Amino acid sequence: MEATTSSPSAAPSPQPRAREEGSSGEGSPVRFEAEPGRYRHWKLSLEGAIARVSMDVDEDAPMRPGYQLKLNSYDLAVDIELADIVQRLRFERPEVKAVVVTSAQPRIFCAGANIYMLGSSSHAFKVNFCKFTNETRLALEEACSESGQHYLAALNGVASGGGYELALACEEIFLCDDGSSAVSFPETPLLAVLPGTGGLTRLVDKRKVRRDLADVFSTLAEGVRGKRAQEWGLVDRSIPRSRFDQAVAQRAAELAAATPDRPGPGVELAPLEPRRAEDGDVSTCDYRHVSLKVDRAARTAEIRVLGPDGEGPSDAAGMRRAGADLWALRAFRELDDALLDLRFNHPTVGLVLLRTAGSPDAVRAADEALWAARDDWFVKEVLLHMRRVLKRLDLTARSVFALIEPGSCFAGSLFELALAADRSYMLDGGDDDASRASPATVALGPLNFGPLAMSNGLTRLASRFLGAPERVAALKERTGPLSAEEALEEGLCTFAPDAMDWDDEVRLAIEERVSLSPDALTGMEASLRFCGPETMETKIFSRLSAWQNWIFQRPNAVGQRGALTMYGRPERPEFDWRRT
Amino acid sequence: MEATTSSPSAAPSPQPRAREEGSSGEGSPVRFEAEPGRYRHWKLSLEGAIARVSMDVDEDAPMRPGYQLKLNSYDLAVDIELADIVQRLRFERPEVKAVVVTSAQPRIFCAGANIYMLGSSSHAFKVNFCKFTNETRLALEEACSESGQHYLAALNGVASGGGYELALACEEIFLCDDGSSAVSFPETPLLAVLPGTGGLTRLVDKRKVRRDLADVFSTLAEGVRGKRAQEWGLVDRSIPRSRFDQAVAQRAAELAAATPDRPGPGVELAPLEPRRAEDGDVSTCDYRHVSLKVDRAARTAEIRVLGPDGEGPSDAAGMRRAGADLWALRAFRELDDALLDLRFNHPTVGLVLLRTAGSPDAVRAADEALWAARDDWFVKEVLLHMRRVLKRLDLTARSVFALIEPGSCFAGSLFELALAADRSYMLDGGDDDASRASPATVALGPLNFGPLAMSNGLTRLASRFLGAPERVAALKERTGPLSAEEALEEGLCTFAPDAMDWDDEVRLAIEERVSLSPDALTGMEASLRFCGPETMETKIFSRLSAWQNWIFQRPNAVGQRGALTMYGRPERPEFDWRRT
Repeated sequence: MEATTSSPSAAPSPQPRAREEGSSGEGSPVRFEAEPGRYRHWKLSLEGAIARVSMDVDEDAPMRPGYQLKLNSYDLAVDIELADIVQRLRFERPEVKAVVVTSAQPRIFCAGANIYMLGSSSHAFKVNFCKFTNETRLALEEACSESGQHYLAALNGVASGGGYELALACEEIFLCDDGSSAVSFPETPLLAVLPGTGGLTRLVDKRKVRRDLADVFSTLAEGVRGKRAQEWGLVDRSIPRSRFDQAVAQRAAELAAATPDRPGPGVELAPLEPRRAEDGDVSTCDYRHVSLKVDRAARTAEIRVLGPDGEGPSDAAGMRRAGADLWALRAFRELDDALLDLRFNHPTVGLVLLRTAGSPDAVRAADEALWAARDDWFVKEVLLHMRRVLKRLDLTARSVFALIEPGSCFAGSLFELALAADRSYMLDGGDDDASRASPATVALGPLNFGPLAMSNGLTRLASRFLGAPERVAALKERTGPLSAEEALEEGLCTFAPDAMDWDDEVRLAIEERVSLSPDALTGMEASLRFCGPETMETKIFSRLSAWQNWIFQRPNAVGQRGALTMYGRPERPEFDWRRT
Repeated sequence: MEATTSSPSAAPSPQPRAREEGSSGEGSPVRFEAEPGRYRHWKLSLEGAIARVSMDVDEDAPMRPGYQLKLNSYDLAVDIELADIVQRLRFERPEVKAVVVTSAQPRIFCAGANIYMLGSSSHAFKVNFCKFTNETRLALEEACSESGQHYLAALNGVASGGGYELALACEEIFLCDDGSSAVSFPETPLLAVLPGTGGLTRLVDKRKVRRDLADVFSTLAEGVRGKRAQEWGLVDRSIPRSRFDQAVAQRAAELAAATPDRPGPGVELAPLEPRRAEDGDVSTCDYRHVSLKVDRAARTAEIRVLGPDGEGPSDAAGMRRAGADLWALRAFRELDDALLDLRFNHPTVGLVLLRTAGSPDAVRAADEALWAARDDWFVKEVLLHMRRVLKRLDLTARSVFALIEPGSCFAGSLFELALAADRSYMLDGGDDDASRASPATVALGPLNFGPLAMSNGLTRLASRFLGAPERVAALKERTGPLSAEEALEEGLCTFAPDAMDWDDEVRLAIEERVSLSPDALTGMEASLRFCGPETMETKIFSRLSAWQNWIFQRPNAVGQRGALTMYGRPERPEFDWRRT
């Protein structure tokens, strides 16, 4: 990532931006790759171990026409840049140990998600927008807890709604005590919705604000300022303006000083440069290791992941040299991009078919090399990234079937794809001599037993065998490839039809799945995928987001006289008072 | 409770039933008290330690006109009787140690909630209906785990949807293997909704069914029979018809034999006999210790609880003699009935004001006597009942403010009301000589530190001070009454205005609260009330129910061409395929 400064020279590049080509989020495609040289809404300055990320939203550059991004309010494009900053700091700037998040605009830190953007978006877009911003906040928290990059929110103005939620995702919050800077959740009193980016959950679960104070706070449109914000635990420190910058700088220096070094150089995240094509109802997007093929008529998509091509580096030094070309990093970055493409740009696809192709041994060798070198910061980042991408898959509201066929490489980290799927079909045997001679197998490795845990804190294997941890322990000993029969016996695939039945069984399963209600499937999958413990992370996506999805549907928010619709107009919204 | 048999003599009594007076659930009031002599849909037979609860729904006795309760499908009235059976068995039949739940109708165990009833109900009613049935299932599970009454589901026919969910709430499930009996969740494939009574959560979290098998099962309209149902963990045993009755009887005998005695006699739960009155916009309902006053114009309700009148029994023997007249049992039964009345019959009330009146010392004495005698089964049942009622309050989707004034008795178990409230206002001092001489106090006692835990498994104090368990420990030492100033200092009330400010501050808070969107408040309160750990119980009400509420709003289920609307018609439903 290029280090930029907060000077005007870091202003938006005049070059055409990929985002502008198709950024409406409601028709033309959204693209999720960002480039530091082209950030439009954030300024980044680096000074030794301390990075300063300043929000400076260009109000005249909304992602699609129809609203202005006033008061540092954000839309998806703003958040895509933030996600890119958090990601690149981890990979590209290992020397950074403290990140100060602040505002470059006077008297406002951030006004949260843009209301007019929300008000004019479809329900599906709103839900996916909130999901993405939640994932970005969680990645930021993970950078604090796992990467030794400590985020400090320096609220030099009003932080309302999503603005305060961004602060809540930081490790510490400093608020300027100047008579006007405040933190607030005006969503409930002004908009009849909830803070949609984890705010209520983080308030009581992360910051452990007393629930009655949280109740008062969350119904107070003007929010809470100064000492009271500190007393209630809404911020860590309230500091007079005269000493604010110094206190922030000092705390950032302390955080940095207390954090171990991560020896550089960083690894630059090169652009993915996928090739996209359209052919009637079929869209394809080919990356180096991943391809996404969408069949709009069938309402299915296929994601195919290729295993490593030949032997990869076996130690940390070699992996750092490979950098962004390292298979595990590149393939999972591509998968991530494909999943976001699917979520935002292909809303009617109901079912994702996961396939892999390549050598299971090569996947296992790559996994084992990663695992052996996990103490290296870069390798650790690669593993954390794989974990985030797999969580993104778990949280993607589409049915997922894994198809395990001859020639596939569902081993180790790629077997997690099959474990993340709602079901898996594994072909028992083959339908020609070649496939009979080398039938499909699956295999486990070190990455299946810890580093790629789900957001519930359990591995996918532990979630799968929630009632039988002894089975997971026994599987640790099964290091060789497992045939379809063995995988079925061990509970590692759902069905194992033979070649005679395969086509019909898979076809019928697909046809049946895409005929079911997309809403019921979303709720069903969200319930079955996340068995066992709930964490702050899963609570954000279940309790909070599920309620928010509900509220986003209700006439009290989005009806003709609903509060979200009426926002900014002189009339009062009208409510149906029946409580449910 | 009267023992009845499965003979025709237990058929519905010809006497007029309270339920018939106002049972629509959509206008005329629902009443929640039931009497064994008047059960219409269940048969109960008792033989020593074993009770047999047979579902035999009278299809011609729906709670309101417009649908028939075919195939042992149920509506709220059926579930009110079931809740009454579970409750009465615990209090009235301590000798019962195993409860066989089965069907008295041929080839069908239970077809779940009646679809036509659901399809013709308002959203608010559907949500409250599901909440009540969930609470009933959880009470049944609590009877298994806490009261030594072990429920065994004997599925002698098809158990579909809510029918299988009832079985899932039982401790064990036996399924008749006769080629037709099956368990199934047809909701998603046939109705485009979710099983609404904890089914998906219990499938993976309680029975720990593998998530991919749960996925297949939950999309298979016809369900799963015989050995496969046992192999997948959907039932504990699949048993041929010829040996079914014997196997059930034998298992019930085993369960009973392994359970300690609870020495009788039981305590009969006398009717509450509230006095109801209407006066313009104001409805009142006066019980012995509780009153509910609803102001429809203001959209507020007041629940006032009176503390014990004079000295109560100090030991278990005395409490058993007092029986249903024991203050703690009677007052909390009344509170329970008032909460249900509020939920179903006063949907537009947004805010509940909780008040108490009486002697704090008398409440603490009653609490201490209960706590000292907690090893007695009846006393334990009283404590468990108090816990259930307080959970019902936590789960009531209305804003709740506690008003702590001179003359109140927010001590011990009644202080839990203030802790359950979203906020509390405590009057500091008084506005006349009398109240200045004896100002409001609050006090803690043994029941605040464990036995009345919330559904998240924590006490309300531990939830309140989630980040500071040491404060909870310190509060254990504060045994005396606390003034408003002290309570504020200890974080035990939200605000403590003095007499000068009290009226205005409380009035403004009320006016402001009832002006906010009821939907946003429901989501906000559900998020803030349940901080900390999630349990199977909270997951059922958050993850699962929140999704179900969402789905119940969606056109794919309830629109003109939605699956719930179209059920039973020849045409197929039409779906908006966009996934969210």
